[in-house]
Amino acid sequence: MQRYDKRKYDELRNIKITKDYTKHADGSVLIEFGDTKVICTAMVEEKIPIFLKGQGKGWITSEYRMLPSSTVTRKIRDSSKGKVDGRNMEIQRLIGRTLRSIINLEKLGERTLWVDCDVIQADGGTRTASITGAFVAIMIAVKKLKDAGRIKELPLDHFVAAVSVGVVQGQPLLDLCYEEDSKAEVDMNVVMTETGQYVEIQGTGEARPMSKEELSTLLTYAEKGIMELINLQRKTLMEQ
Amino acid sequence: MQRYDKRKYDELRNIKITKDYTKHADGSVLIEFGDTKVICTAMVEEKIPIFLKGQGKGWITSEYRMLPSSTVTRKIRDSSKGKVDGRNMEIQRLIGRTLRSIINLEKLGERTLWVDCDVIQADGGTRTASITGAFVAIMIAVKKLKDAGRIKELPLDHFVAAVSVGVVQGQPLLDLCYEEDSKAEVDMNVVMTETGQYVEIQGTGEARPMSKEELSTLLTYAEKGIMELINLQRKTLMEQ
Amino acid sequence: MQRYDKRKYDELRNIKITKDYTKHADGSVLIEFGDTKVICTAMVEEKIPIFLKGQGKGWITSEYRMLPSSTVTRKIRDSSKGKVDGRNMEIQRLIGRTLRSIINLEKLGERTLWVDCDVIQADGGTRTASITGAFVAIMIAVKKLKDAGRIKELPLDHFVAAVSVGVVQGQPLLDLCYEEDSKAEVDMNVVMTETGQYVEIQGTGEARPMSKEELSTLLTYAEKGIMELINLQRKTLMEQ
Amino acid sequence: MQRYDKRKYDELRNIKITKDYTKHADGSVLIEFGDTKVICTAMVEEKIPIFLKGQGKGWITSEYRMLPSSTVTRKIRDSSKGKVDGRNMEIQRLIGRTLRSIINLEKLGERTLWVDCDVIQADGGTRTASITGAFVAIMIAVKKLKDAGRIKELPLDHFVAAVSVGVVQGQPLLDLCYEEDSKAEVDMNVVMTETGQYVEIQGTGEARPMSKEELSTLLTYAEKGIMELINLQRKTLMEQ
Amino acid sequence: MQRYDKRKYDELRNIKITKDYTKHADGSVLIEFGDTKVICTAMVEEKIPIFLKGQGKGWITSEYRMLPSSTVTRKIRDSSKGKVDGRNMEIQRLIGRTLRSIINLEKLGERTLWVDCDVIQADGGTRTASITGAFVAIMIAVKKLKDAGRIKELPLDHFVAAVSVGVVQGQPLLDLCYEEDSKAEVDMNVVMTETGQYVEIQGTGEARPMSKEELSTLLTYAEKGIMELINLQRKTLMEQ
Amino acid sequence: MQRYDKRKYDELRNIKITKDYTKHADGSVLIEFGDTKVICTAMVEEKIPIFLKGQGKGWITSEYRMLPSSTVTRKIRDSSKGKVDGRNMEIQRLIGRTLRSIINLEKLGERTLWVDCDVIQADGGTRTASITGAFVAIMIAVKKLKDAGRIKELPLDHFVAAVSVGVVQGQPLLDLCYEEDSKAEVDMNVVMTETGQYVEIQGTGEARPMSKEELSTLLTYAEKGIMELINLQRKTLMEQ
Repeated sequence: MQRYDKRKYDELRNIKITKDYTKHADGSVLIEFGDTKVICTAMVEEKIPIFLKGQGKGWITSEYRMLPSSTVTRKIRDSSKGKVDGRNMEIQRLIGRTLRSIINLEKLGERTLWVDCDVIQADGGTRTASITGAFVAIMIAVKKLKDAGRIKELPLDHFVAAVSVGVVQGQPLLDLCYEEDSKAEVDMNVVMTETGQYVEIQGTGEARPMSKEELSTLLTYAEKGIMELINLQRKTLMEQ
Repeated sequence: MQRYDKRKYDELRNIKITKDYTKHADGSVLIEFGDTKVICTAMVEEKIPIFLKGQGKGWITSEYRMLPSSTVTRKIRDSSKGKVDGRNMEIQRLIGRTLRSIINLEKLGERTLWVDCDVIQADGGTRTASITGAFVAIMIAVKKLKDAGRIKELPLDHFVAAVSVGVVQGQPLLDLCYEEDSKAEVDMNVVMTETGQYVEIQGTGEARPMSKEELSTLLTYAEKGIMELINLQRKTLMEQ
Repeated sequence: MQRYDKRKYDELRNIKITKDYTKHADGSVLIEFGDTKVICTAMVEEKIPIFLKGQGKGWITSEYRMLPSSTVTRKIRDSSKGKVDGRNMEIQRLIGRTLRSIINLEKLGERTLWVDCDVIQADGGTRTASITGAFVAIMIAVKKLKDAGRIKELPLDHFVAAVSVGVVQGQPLLDLCYEEDSKAEVDMNVVMTETGQYVEIQGTGEARPMSKEELSTLLTYAEKGIMELINLQRKTLMEQ
Repeated sequence: MQRYDKRKYDELRNIKITKDYTKHADGSVLIEFGDTKVICTAMVEEKIPIFLKGQGKGWITSEYRMLPSSTVTRKIRDSSKGKVDGRNMEIQRLIGRTLRSIINLEKLGERTLWVDCDVIQADGGTRTASITGAFVAIMIAVKKLKDAGRIKELPLDHFVAAVSVGVVQGQPLLDLCYEEDSKAEVDMNVVMTETGQYVEIQGTGEARPMSKEELSTLLTYAEKGIMELINLQRKTLMEQ
Repeated sequence: MQRYDKRKYDELRNIKITKDYTKHADGSVLIEFGDTKVICTAMVEEKIPIFLKGQGKGWITSEYRMLPSSTVTRKIRDSSKGKVDGRNMEIQRLIGRTLRSIINLEKLGERTLWVDCDVIQADGGTRTASITGAFVAIMIAVKKLKDAGRIKELPLDHFVAAVSVGVVQGQPLLDLCYEEDSKAEVDMNVVMTETGQYVEIQGTGEARPMSKEELSTLLTYAEKGIMELINLQRKTLMEQ
Repeated sequence: MQRYDKRKYDELRNIKITKDYTKHADGSVLIEFGDTKVICTAMVEEKIPIFLKGQGKGWITSEYRMLPSSTVTRKIRDSSKGKVDGRNMEIQRLIGRTLRSIINLEKLGERTLWVDCDVIQADGGTRTASITGAFVAIMIAVKKLKDAGRIKELPLDHFVAAVSVGVVQGQPLLDLCYEEDSKAEVDMNVVMTETGQYVEIQGTGEARPMSKEELSTLLTYAEKGIMELINLQRKTLMEQ
């Protein structure tokens, strides 16, 4: 089986991270996984939700949306439907959970980190691109906090990135584009730290259940991709 | 480490499935995982959503809610908030995805299966109890369809059940009660077929990431628990 | 005319009240009027709405809903419609008004009593079963408050119960089941204290207006039924 | 006890009905019960809800609202709260139920009658003024239908009006103004036909339950008031 | 071209302002522009929104709605649709902006002025009638504040009124009725002070763009009409 | 007075239009007015709203939103508030009205043009940048329709662009940036065709009314700016 875009089975698409994509957010990037493009931003607010007052801890909230024109068939806005779409809700809960599990809220202090992931063009893997980009946006934002002396140390212990894997026509593949994703029998999103530990695993048998062997290969492919993504995050953050 | 209720690490709580718990649904059960109690029902409607018309296929919709009094602190109703809570939305999407992946919609024919999981008492593991109970409710409902000659064969190929596993104080555990769940460092829900294949895996590092060894033990415990649950489902369905 | 289930015209259905049906609420019962089954719970919250602060008075809020599978045709959830159904709203206002009129809010002190009535199976008379069961749930909850020394005396002066009456084919009847209710020309709900005084009367000419004679007979039947219900409430509360 | 405005215990306030108050509705009146002023309109739409198609029957829908400036403290609009207020919902359900019970939907034919009651100034008894005024608006509208040959006979068999009664300081009173209503121990709304039959009775013990003697006096007062209101309706409709 | 109702091109319809139309509001008028009738009220609340606390300034909020029966085809209520209609929103923003620009919020003091414009009959020009009437209602309300010594001086420096102008069949016209408005190629609303300065100009090419000459004539007509309206406002306010 | 960014009073900011900014829309541009950046897209759907069926005409719908991170203080999403913000509603109604007035819906045929304007960075003038960019996106989309033979001629007769003007410290200015806009005494948005005719004029006295002389200068400045914008639109569309 040849992949839709000629890639090897365990090869990522062309990945690009553009820092400081917009000027108002404390941290902002445009992240591209091939034709998937997401604006990820982090904004610091010196305020926390009432239920956290007086505990010396911070908070992270994240939202995920797609522009109506980001998909082949125009996607109706949640605000026009009057309610948040189930898929958007599920994805932003995943992003928030992931980020809260790697950020030390005590070290962040009594402030809120607003993370927004807005897909401007979708071609598969938008949620994993969002997590990978959001991590960089947060790093930029918290570094500014540290440089300004508002926090003493960075509230993140290790790098984190995410990638999708799946099985198409019986073949495990890394980083599926939309064309592959829409035909996948099995679909999995993996979020992992630089030390090779799992922050989140979400595997679904779309068309049929997944065998133990498939699970094992998919986890191996995901780890390979994530290590490459973390390298790129690191390089991006070191550039001036 | 001793478990809160003295169980072995890989031991399920006391599981009970009461068939025909209410009279109007085509299939209905009360499922109990220890103190967790969920009413699962399946109702057949001879109608499908417009976008499916004329394709000879059926549809499955599922909803999950908790009674306000099911939790220690009263849970505000979604209808009083005016929107579906993110957690409820995520869980009912999981239940629906799971059920759609094991039911053959062509064999179901042009009808909708409404699956409702209403938690009347919560003590951890409500989503996996819901899936395990919903499967039985559906089986009862589709058997009635077959007995009435409305379908030719059962639209399900294999049994499916679900269980939660997690790591508490470094110790992997099967079927966490609320007391354990609230302290878990790592939390995972597994949905599996009787043939040992994964329908869904959702693992989350709540307090810290999960190691590869932990993942492996948790999957082993989950499989043991699910095989026991499927035995009970089978026994329940065979009783008159 | 013979009644659908052979009862006498002024005879209640088989009534059952199961105490402590679920474990988290301060007071909880399952009440059954024949095939009508309602979970009624009372939960105490040590907090009152802002507009009542500093007046030394408590508050009661009640909600009424039906599980989707409680009726023959699946009932769409309010949360899926995005708004509370008019009938649910009307019934929960009736329940709340009734309970507030018999509870002494000063004696309750600055706390809120949350009353939830969730119908798990409907066969006519769900609102009157809800009131009758909610009264018992509240009594259990306020007795606990008194036993714990959090209030000095019970904030209720007399017992209260409710029943439906109606006219079917010209014949006044007590405690209509769904089969009767759906054909009733005249329909009335009565809430009464143990001293025979009216807390609420709601009579409606469904198919035609009601004569003065019918009104008189219906009120007599209602009183008979309510006295029997209050006896059962009393017995239930005295059991250990 | 002297009444707030010197009326006798069983005396109505000054009642006025102004026909054709606005020009676009098929029937419209301004009805005044003392300082209570309500615009009641009826509009005919040659269309029925889908679920009624093909049955040869019509439909009636009614809505009740208060202008924000109709009350002493500005009343927040339902549309600004994003949901219909429970009291408005309850009242419009009462109005609709009342009207549907006296109108013959077969004779109305496949059309919808939209009834709107908008309170422009409130001083007690708005729901009963609404019903009394809505009846006149409907009569005007259906007479136009008959005059135009669109229906053969009037779809109403008898006149209907409504009035509030209540107990203040132990004294039963007819047609309470706001000053009285806000202190009433017992409150009742009665809807009655010209033949003295009950279309709707809604009695509530606000501060304490109501005795049988009170119920009896209140019903007598209500009947007296309603007969006077029906006389006025009749006179209004006969004027050119 | 002759106008629908024989008026001259730059002639207003018959304008009437009835003071104290309802009794609960601090200021209230019924304003009529021909068959267009709007109830405009102003209510003072001794409270301001949280974000303004402690600044010594007041606030103005305004709402605009149409009764369902105010138009030829019944207008669905915003509260029944569950959201505020775009046109209503746009108009009430215009009314609020206009009023805030001519009222000195410091002189008003820490209180809110609620302005409600409720159209009871519509025949074109409802938004400009609303502004013209709201100004009078506010003047009545603030004069009461001053008479009661709650403010030292009136917080308004000059009179303001509004009128619509438009082009029909190439002919500029003042104060369009519905019949004219529905055929207008160009449509403009002008809000002006007694000193001939513009508070708001909103011109729209409905069917085609507007030429510079048309703009100029329309502004001249508008000024003529507004000066007449301000005269009437002044006269109304001076009457006892 | 020197302008914030040294521009002349009647000078536009640096304007840039990037064609084909995203790949799924039929027409898409990124338009920049200085630091204001808006993604404008046009998508063709071969379907029209039900109320237009069978008339041989098309339809245009437009939506305007700002990304949460587009402003200095994070802007809450409409979908998180559960309703469309009044300002967004007003702006998208302006965009839609403008576009519908210059597009010939008969020539468009029975299809819908969805226009989305999503602000990714805001620095004043987002609504006029949206209109100017949306025009180009639509031109790209309808040219594709024509090239594909789906329409016979372009359904637009003339170019249209928009710009904001205002008065700051008594000085009329063209194309205000946020810094200027936030201090403007008078604010106006003008939409004009290449032939110098007005499609829309919206002028507001923010802090005080506007004099006739100011109106005249602002219209002159706006015309100058719009002619330059139309030149750029034309150049952009001619490039390959």
